[in-house]
Amino acid sequence: MGKNMVLRLLEHGWEIVATDANPQAVADIKNSGAQGVSDLAILTDKLDSPRLLWLMVPHQVVDTVLEELMPLLEEGDVVIDGGNSNYKETLRRASELEAKGIKFMDAGISGGPAGARNGACSMVGGSKELFENNEELFKDISAPESYGRMGRTGAGHFVKMVHNGIEYGMMQAIGEGFGVMKKSDFDLDLQEVTRVYNHNSVIESRLVGWLQSAFEQEGVDLEAISGKVSHSGEGLWTVEVAKELNISVPIIEGSLTFREESQKNPSYIGKVVSALRNQFGGHEVSKKQEL
Amino acid sequence: MGKNMVLRLLEHGWEIVATDANPQAVADIKNSGAQGVSDLAILTDKLDSPRLLWLMVPHQVVDTVLEELMPLLEEGDVVIDGGNSNYKETLRRASELEAKGIKFMDAGISGGPAGARNGACSMVGGSKELFENNEELFKDISAPESYGRMGRTGAGHFVKMVHNGIEYGMMQAIGEGFGVMKKSDFDLDLQEVTRVYNHNSVIESRLVGWLQSAFEQEGVDLEAISGKVSHSGEGLWTVEVAKELNISVPIIEGSLTFREESQKNPSYIGKVVSALRNQFGGHEVSKKQEL
Repeated sequence: MGKNMVLRLLEHGWEIVATDANPQAVADIKNSGAQGVSDLAILTDKLDSPRLLWLMVPHQVVDTVLEELMPLLEEGDVVIDGGNSNYKETLRRASELEAKGIKFMDAGISGGPAGARNGACSMVGGSKELFENNEELFKDISAPESYGRMGRTGAGHFVKMVHNGIEYGMMQAIGEGFGVMKKSDFDLDLQEVTRVYNHNSVIESRLVGWLQSAFEQEGVDLEAISGKVSHSGEGLWTVEVAKELNISVPIIEGSLTFREESQKNPSYIGKVVSALRNQFGGHEVSKKQEL
Repeated sequence: MGKNMVLRLLEHGWEIVATDANPQAVADIKNSGAQGVSDLAILTDKLDSPRLLWLMVPHQVVDTVLEELMPLLEEGDVVIDGGNSNYKETLRRASELEAKGIKFMDAGISGGPAGARNGACSMVGGSKELFENNEELFKDISAPESYGRMGRTGAGHFVKMVHNGIEYGMMQAIGEGFGVMKKSDFDLDLQEVTRVYNHNSVIESRLVGWLQSAFEQEGVDLEAISGKVSHSGEGLWTVEVAKELNISVPIIEGSLTFREESQKNPSYIGKVVSALRNQFGGHEVSKKQEL
């Protein structure tokens, strides 16, 4: 996703210095027209102050990157975490960085690698002033009108977390419905069903459209798609936050439980959910072998 | 919905004779340019053989209407049930009518009254021959490309039933997500959240768009909307069929359970779901007083 965002920003006239733990990714960046560098020291050295830095790394390594980055930064620099971090970690990191005069913003980015290339949906958290100062960046990363300030620091990751919780539930509902239709004796053409569902029905949605694409590419049996569904954290966090707020969320929780249980009990419903995750991309969906 | 379909078909050049149990609806039909008549005897008398009849009544009264209609019909007439009937009833009715030489088709229509006026989504069941002979009707009732033959008799209502089951789950997931955001201390502008969600995020959908409209019209507190959610049968039927097929559908079932329990425990999540049902219409959503 990071590379695709670089390509998109280059088209919008941004000058970019980028790095990645993987040397091949750095080489790719160099070929794209941005400056690709081998480490954060070189990267921060090449940027004028105040620096504007965008992190696009798995949430598990944000702290590691920040630890390396912090000594290289100066007061007034702005760091944006565009990954899927837990908003509570974002709040902690923001106060740690702010104690050193470094500004921190969060941006929840939806749309997967294709969205990152063609225009994502960006949910931004940070002070009004910081947002306005950097609005051009969010605008250029996003598809037209597809960004907004959700609130103070952390609000971007919070709203993105809930987005993913909703996504879990919507995908699971679609999975269950197609599970029922697959097993019925009506001998339905499920690809034709997705086509009709996605033309002016109440459930018309990007997700149903992606299922239609998946059926076109993989066939309706989804033979090559895993019936085990992975999860990357945000559904779980949504459930945890709901419990803290004393709100019952059986649909989102049930969707998460399904994914966990699918590791032992792969199913056609799981294949549908995996196929959807595969369509919007950014998720490694294991194929075939474990089924 | 029936009246809106009449208006749409008139625009497409159809000649229509219509009736309704409510004299006011008959008067409205007369004003629209169709022939409005007071009963089924007059209606069948005015139609040339073979007749093409469309029923658009609550599923609870289909048998009553058919009982009155059957003696008035002749071999070769075609009856289409465009309501939300249980597909098992459709199968029974089809064999009863076919025993008398009357042809029966089922059409699950999604999109509510607005869809019926501006172009619905039509999921049709019936023999290939019957479908092809009447394709012009389904085409004119539907928005462009928004219809299809799902399979033999009953398949239209079956696919529409599952559509509504999926709809229950998707709406409930959205409700839960907004319930969590409503109670968070981020002081989120939920209307702005729906706007951003509906621009290139993974959950972009008609439903999220309708929630944005509901917030615009009612305010994000949805004060005037009931926190109790009704259901009209198809979610329950989907759960029953899933049990017969030995498929676990906890998301659809949980969404149904929520609606039942919401009668005693209305909530903001219920308000979101009611507001969505209100947006796509056709459902009486009680307001305020019972809360």
